[in-house]
Amino acid sequence: MKENSLSFLGSTKNFQQAQGVIFGAPFDGTTSFRAGARFAPANMRENSYGIETYSPYQKRDLEEIQFFDAGDLEIPFGNPEKALDLVENFTQKILDHKKIPIMLGGEHLLTLGSVRALFKHYPNLHVIHFDAHADLRDNYLGEVLSHATVMKRILDFLGNHKIYQFGIRSGEKEEFTLAKTCTFLNPFNLKGIGKILPQIQNIPLYITIDLDVLDPSIFSGTGTPEPGGVFYHELQDAIMQLKGLNIVGFDLCELSPHYDSSGVSTLVACKVLRECLLSFLK
Amino acid sequence: MKENSLSFLGSTKNFQQAQGVIFGAPFDGTTSFRAGARFAPANMRENSYGIETYSPYQKRDLEEIQFFDAGDLEIPFGNPEKALDLVENFTQKILDHKKIPIMLGGEHLLTLGSVRALFKHYPNLHVIHFDAHADLRDNYLGEVLSHATVMKRILDFLGNHKIYQFGIRSGEKEEFTLAKTCTFLNPFNLKGIGKILPQIQNIPLYITIDLDVLDPSIFSGTGTPEPGGVFYHELQDAIMQLKGLNIVGFDLCELSPHYDSSGVSTLVACKVLRECLLSFLK
Amino acid sequence: MKENSLSFLGSTKNFQQAQGVIFGAPFDGTTSFRAGARFAPANMRENSYGIETYSPYQKRDLEEIQFFDAGDLEIPFGNPEKALDLVENFTQKILDHKKIPIMLGGEHLLTLGSVRALFKHYPNLHVIHFDAHADLRDNYLGEVLSHATVMKRILDFLGNHKIYQFGIRSGEKEEFTLAKTCTFLNPFNLKGIGKILPQIQNIPLYITIDLDVLDPSIFSGTGTPEPGGVFYHELQDAIMQLKGLNIVGFDLCELSPHYDSSGVSTLVACKVLRECLLSFLK
Amino acid sequence: MKENSLSFLGSTKNFQQAQGVIFGAPFDGTTSFRAGARFAPANMRENSYGIETYSPYQKRDLEEIQFFDAGDLEIPFGNPEKALDLVENFTQKILDHKKIPIMLGGEHLLTLGSVRALFKHYPNLHVIHFDAHADLRDNYLGEVLSHATVMKRILDFLGNHKIYQFGIRSGEKEEFTLAKTCTFLNPFNLKGIGKILPQIQNIPLYITIDLDVLDPSIFSGTGTPEPGGVFYHELQDAIMQLKGLNIVGFDLCELSPHYDSSGVSTLVACKVLRECLLSFLK
Amino acid sequence: MKENSLSFLGSTKNFQQAQGVIFGAPFDGTTSFRAGARFAPANMRENSYGIETYSPYQKRDLEEIQFFDAGDLEIPFGNPEKALDLVENFTQKILDHKKIPIMLGGEHLLTLGSVRALFKHYPNLHVIHFDAHADLRDNYLGEVLSHATVMKRILDFLGNHKIYQFGIRSGEKEEFTLAKTCTFLNPFNLKGIGKILPQIQNIPLYITIDLDVLDPSIFSGTGTPEPGGVFYHELQDAIMQLKGLNIVGFDLCELSPHYDSSGVSTLVACKVLRECLLSFLK
Amino acid sequence: MKENSLSFLGSTKNFQQAQGVIFGAPFDGTTSFRAGARFAPANMRENSYGIETYSPYQKRDLEEIQFFDAGDLEIPFGNPEKALDLVENFTQKILDHKKIPIMLGGEHLLTLGSVRALFKHYPNLHVIHFDAHADLRDNYLGEVLSHATVMKRILDFLGNHKIYQFGIRSGEKEEFTLAKTCTFLNPFNLKGIGKILPQIQNIPLYITIDLDVLDPSIFSGTGTPEPGGVFYHELQDAIMQLKGLNIVGFDLCELSPHYDSSGVSTLVACKVLRECLLSFLK
Repeated sequence: MKENSLSFLGSTKNFQQAQGVIFGAPFDGTTSFRAGARFAPANMRENSYGIETYSPYQKRDLEEIQFFDAGDLEIPFGNPEKALDLVENFTQKILDHKKIPIMLGGEHLLTLGSVRALFKHYPNLHVIHFDAHADLRDNYLGEVLSHATVMKRILDFLGNHKIYQFGIRSGEKEEFTLAKTCTFLNPFNLKGIGKILPQIQNIPLYITIDLDVLDPSIFSGTGTPEPGGVFYHELQDAIMQLKGLNIVGFDLCELSPHYDSSGVSTLVACKVLRECLLSFLK
Repeated sequence: MKENSLSFLGSTKNFQQAQGVIFGAPFDGTTSFRAGARFAPANMRENSYGIETYSPYQKRDLEEIQFFDAGDLEIPFGNPEKALDLVENFTQKILDHKKIPIMLGGEHLLTLGSVRALFKHYPNLHVIHFDAHADLRDNYLGEVLSHATVMKRILDFLGNHKIYQFGIRSGEKEEFTLAKTCTFLNPFNLKGIGKILPQIQNIPLYITIDLDVLDPSIFSGTGTPEPGGVFYHELQDAIMQLKGLNIVGFDLCELSPHYDSSGVSTLVACKVLRECLLSFLK
Repeated sequence: MKENSLSFLGSTKNFQQAQGVIFGAPFDGTTSFRAGARFAPANMRENSYGIETYSPYQKRDLEEIQFFDAGDLEIPFGNPEKALDLVENFTQKILDHKKIPIMLGGEHLLTLGSVRALFKHYPNLHVIHFDAHADLRDNYLGEVLSHATVMKRILDFLGNHKIYQFGIRSGEKEEFTLAKTCTFLNPFNLKGIGKILPQIQNIPLYITIDLDVLDPSIFSGTGTPEPGGVFYHELQDAIMQLKGLNIVGFDLCELSPHYDSSGVSTLVACKVLRECLLSFLK
Repeated sequence: MKENSLSFLGSTKNFQQAQGVIFGAPFDGTTSFRAGARFAPANMRENSYGIETYSPYQKRDLEEIQFFDAGDLEIPFGNPEKALDLVENFTQKILDHKKIPIMLGGEHLLTLGSVRALFKHYPNLHVIHFDAHADLRDNYLGEVLSHATVMKRILDFLGNHKIYQFGIRSGEKEEFTLAKTCTFLNPFNLKGIGKILPQIQNIPLYITIDLDVLDPSIFSGTGTPEPGGVFYHELQDAIMQLKGLNIVGFDLCELSPHYDSSGVSTLVACKVLRECLLSFLK
Repeated sequence: MKENSLSFLGSTKNFQQAQGVIFGAPFDGTTSFRAGARFAPANMRENSYGIETYSPYQKRDLEEIQFFDAGDLEIPFGNPEKALDLVENFTQKILDHKKIPIMLGGEHLLTLGSVRALFKHYPNLHVIHFDAHADLRDNYLGEVLSHATVMKRILDFLGNHKIYQFGIRSGEKEEFTLAKTCTFLNPFNLKGIGKILPQIQNIPLYITIDLDVLDPSIFSGTGTPEPGGVFYHELQDAIMQLKGLNIVGFDLCELSPHYDSSGVSTLVACKVLRECLLSFLK
Repeated sequence: MKENSLSFLGSTKNFQQAQGVIFGAPFDGTTSFRAGARFAPANMRENSYGIETYSPYQKRDLEEIQFFDAGDLEIPFGNPEKALDLVENFTQKILDHKKIPIMLGGEHLLTLGSVRALFKHYPNLHVIHFDAHADLRDNYLGEVLSHATVMKRILDFLGNHKIYQFGIRSGEKEEFTLAKTCTFLNPFNLKGIGKILPQIQNIPLYITIDLDVLDPSIFSGTGTPEPGGVFYHELQDAIMQLKGLNIVGFDLCELSPHYDSSGVSTLVACKVLRECLLSFLK
């Protein structure tokens, strides 16, 4: 008899052949409003069987691609720097195997760990950032490591003009001011993606999707829901527009499943992941 | 004193004069993900008094039409074939009275019972199918009777090119392949309805609305919510476009009220039913 | 040490300098379907810290304007006339200080109290009314004071052609008939606002927002949710269109927070209030 | 075909033979904390089919007794005196048929309407009162009709030493002081019932059960839950102890079903009603 | 890298050394009121990490015993007989390895599959049954396979006086009558366990725990909650009383996790399983 | 006009006369299972008006004592040591005013901050600890500051035989072993309190109540619910037994209100606080 396994829908059992490696990062220690993103990866695996492996949007099936589900990191509570180190090290390990790291948060700060590891491999790394919030604060109540400061921390070492932000509709005035000179910030919607495509061909790209970029009508299960977001089909279109680019890693963050008793948010996250896998992997 | 009755908003007490007959079919035994549609008909009756009898969309009032609420069938659990027989027999009985059967599911498999009965009366019956899922599998884990196979079972006896499918955004690759040759499948939205109207004038039509065709943002209370669906006003428009056709029966399925603690899904189902009654009955 | 205070995000501690005065009116005694709006003002204050003070839509911060939060009225239960008197008197008091009254309902009937007070100061007062429901019944089960009759009661003394209604999608036939001759009623959406702007320049305006004008997908936490409503960004746009008019008072009503376990509805109400403050105050 | 009826589990269709008559009183307008008891009667009928007609406690079946379900009164909102009149008149009508009135609240104030009618028939009426709250305030924020004043209003005309209160664990100091001289108040539990039995043989008794007498662990679906209450089996025992007395009417109040998403509270209310019917009717 | 596994807390990876084998049976097709038990096994595994491996009650740790988690059976929907066959065959397979089968339901009917397999090995098998319901109906709406008939089906082949029932507080009169002559039925509580211990020494025993034997105050997440049940510590004591007996298999059934939004019911089920493992395995 | 204030029910506006000072500590960063205790203090204040100021248990009213509500500390996220410093410093400040500190958590780790401050004033400080969990781990996944290690951290500097633990029913074997030599641990219930009373007369005592000591049936709104706990009336009795001792500080921790949609847990916490105030203050 075989021990129970629980991997994301459509994942392979063969690590060697996998192009991408999923791992969960169940940490939400710096969440500023409502925590709970720690439960996202396990909840997504369990409910992924509520959707199909086939995408009629992309006319492609998860069984046509190869990705491996490596389970969750064991992250202690109350220590953000350690959480980042664990994410960075594991991402590094995946890169050493020449595979694409795919992180399921957890909160958005964890993206810093992934991007740190990728930046070492790809000094010209650019980041495409979907989010309701600019995440460009320099600190939050004095703490420099926070889900509200993560893009600023990435900006610190990545350098100006390498971060593309979409869907942003919340932040302090200073964040929007900073964005004017340092990032490409497309507020409120995702319409600007088409314009940037010519500039980012062949450049190594990391895609980070804070799922609260979606409108809370379709994604209420998150820590800091922000009305006025994008609808599901807009995010679907954006993901498909990015097909064919040089995507070297990506993540989905900030699903907090306990805040949506209908279970819809988790299914949305699963479908977004399916579509990303089908669009970003070969 | 009179015994307590609980009928859908605006129904008549006069069976003879009724043009349509509502009945509930509280069965959800083949639901593949989350059951609970059995509670839909009673929940709809109770909450129907949360909406008005008048539709400002159609400028028409439920009191201008005549329909009778015959209550729920008593369906045992765990026996899909028996459930179908009960639905088929009751539909037959309504047809014998020369009235229009209006089924409130319950799960979508039950539509097979209704259509079986109607097909005997109307050999040229066509079906208009609103759904997130193609429901064209040949079996589901070996079972041929399932809410995921219902349109395939209907296709089996109705014949090709008589089923019009709208809003479909989920299924196995094989279902979409089958649809290409056997049904008219309009994926993702309801925009194609205008085009088919000329072809279906005067043809006896059955309308089956799996309410999960709606986006989960407005209809989370269902067994297999699928993001990327149609908004309420799109379904409203579609219902009004079908006015004046030869509609000989219709149903609403797959409301699972316990999965929406806000109660909105049930009110949506009630409003959809009101609009169908006002559009489909004379 | 200082006693705990809990005021809406961004409010000032300086009453004298305030241009607007917020007060809560926790009453829901005539609610026809699901009560609970009494909990709205306290719930909004508590959760207002889940959003930012800065609006990237208006490029303006709550810290640039001056408003004071005067807390909740103490309203007894079961006595609508007394509730109205309390609201009227408090509104009067704010007007005596030459400040703008901003009421957080509670149910929509309370708007009658506010408008009564304002009408005494501004005999040419006009009312802009956002709502899913016409609220033009003459009585509700015999009661003339009800959240379903409030606009009729206001019409009674304000006179014809002074009420502009937007987003209305529910009511009895008689209400829509009455609206034809007595109010400007724009059904289903908010598109007609641009047209009326030229007519209402300089006229003293009261804005009443029954939050159920929003679609239940984004605002399920309300007593009588009505599908087919406006999306958040449509209401956002409408609020911004009203900037620069002579707004002498406004209210937000009918948030019933317990019906939305996700907490999103309360955040929506907070954001709507922020945007109203930034648009309606100088 | 027959119109849909929805009566409480085990009720008879034969009014003439019925010994007791159930009616619902969907009103909650004076509720001081969380409203929603208006939904109780309909919710109880719908869910009563989740329990059995047979009681192994009493070894008796609902089919061995005769009671009729007359449905709900149509009560307007926002007018407590009118609500009381409607209850009083309907109770009177049941008494005119020489049957036992059985009211399903709604809030506890409504008991005043029932007791008023019964007092006219039975000048020596005594009341047995199960509740967490003393309900002996003279007014609540100035209002004399309130669910917090109901026992005081009854005391006003019934006279001293005719009210037996059990399970009381909340109230103002003045209420407990008043109780010392005017009622028999047994705090915290139901243990004193045995003692009073000898005194109340043959006296006409009205039993009013505010279901919040139960501990919120088993009955969270109520407006003012109060920890430290009685367990289900204690209330079961108390109901059985009252068997054989001269019970001329009874009610169950203050189920507010929307506050218990598990549905357990409604099932508890149904079981309490079943046990009361089996114990109090012949 | 290793693929993600998700086994119940404290399970071993070594099948050979295991004394007991856990498997999930996610089927709820005959549930008479509220379905959802299909989600129990996965939900229990995921949340089992919310409790400890050590029991201070038994002063024993899960790491001191050996059990293996074989995952869930793949059971189709809508076919109870097939579900039973799958359970029976898998149980048989475990017995062939000379290990103790431990089933996590799913609904209670599935126990029939397990007991069928065990009865072949142990013709003198006796069953200890914890439940709120007698489950002794001969059929339910005509169906002989139902969660309400399961003990009758077992009685059919096991023979009289071999079933011990505890905690029973609901059923039809006929079930209690049948129990008098055919089973040992201890109503309402678990107090009779001590008495039967001398009779069942050395006899091969199957323990089936329908978790709704617990009071809904501590276990609301079940399909047919029945007030008046046993408290957690009473079930804990009962489990410990059975230590040292010849237990050849056991199951836990009828957790329906979606009906308890607090998550407590699942934790209760996990703790009950931990205590059973520590008490029943050597 | 006065700014809105929101203080716990019955608190005084006069700081000077207050004997006790309440403050909230909204931090839950080391919570091991489900976070959310950060929302407890604000939620308790808002809902405290759902209970009465008078206690019929103690025959005493909050208006007979003097306590001040100083609001919440502003604690950053993700930095447990800083959170402890903020708590310690604020506690120190209260002690400097010769008043009794009363902390509303937040998570249980915060008790370490309070006890640190008190230990400086009272070198012979003893701690009475109500909890489901021993909290005696030396570290949790390597972190020494955690809600699972808090009593060990306190033990480190307080010394052996000064901590009395009640209601403990969960922990690792090592914690129970440690307790044998270092603390007084009374497992499962609160019965041992009477015995220790003679030993602790006149000794300065800190009372820490992790509210999960209560059974999840009455207190589901907590991060790590543990079945088999004490009932409300048992905790009530224990609080009253401690009356008259030399209590120099106390706290209530681990209410996580979002996990109990019924709102009962918050009301329980409010009532426990009321009873502590009435029993522990003079």
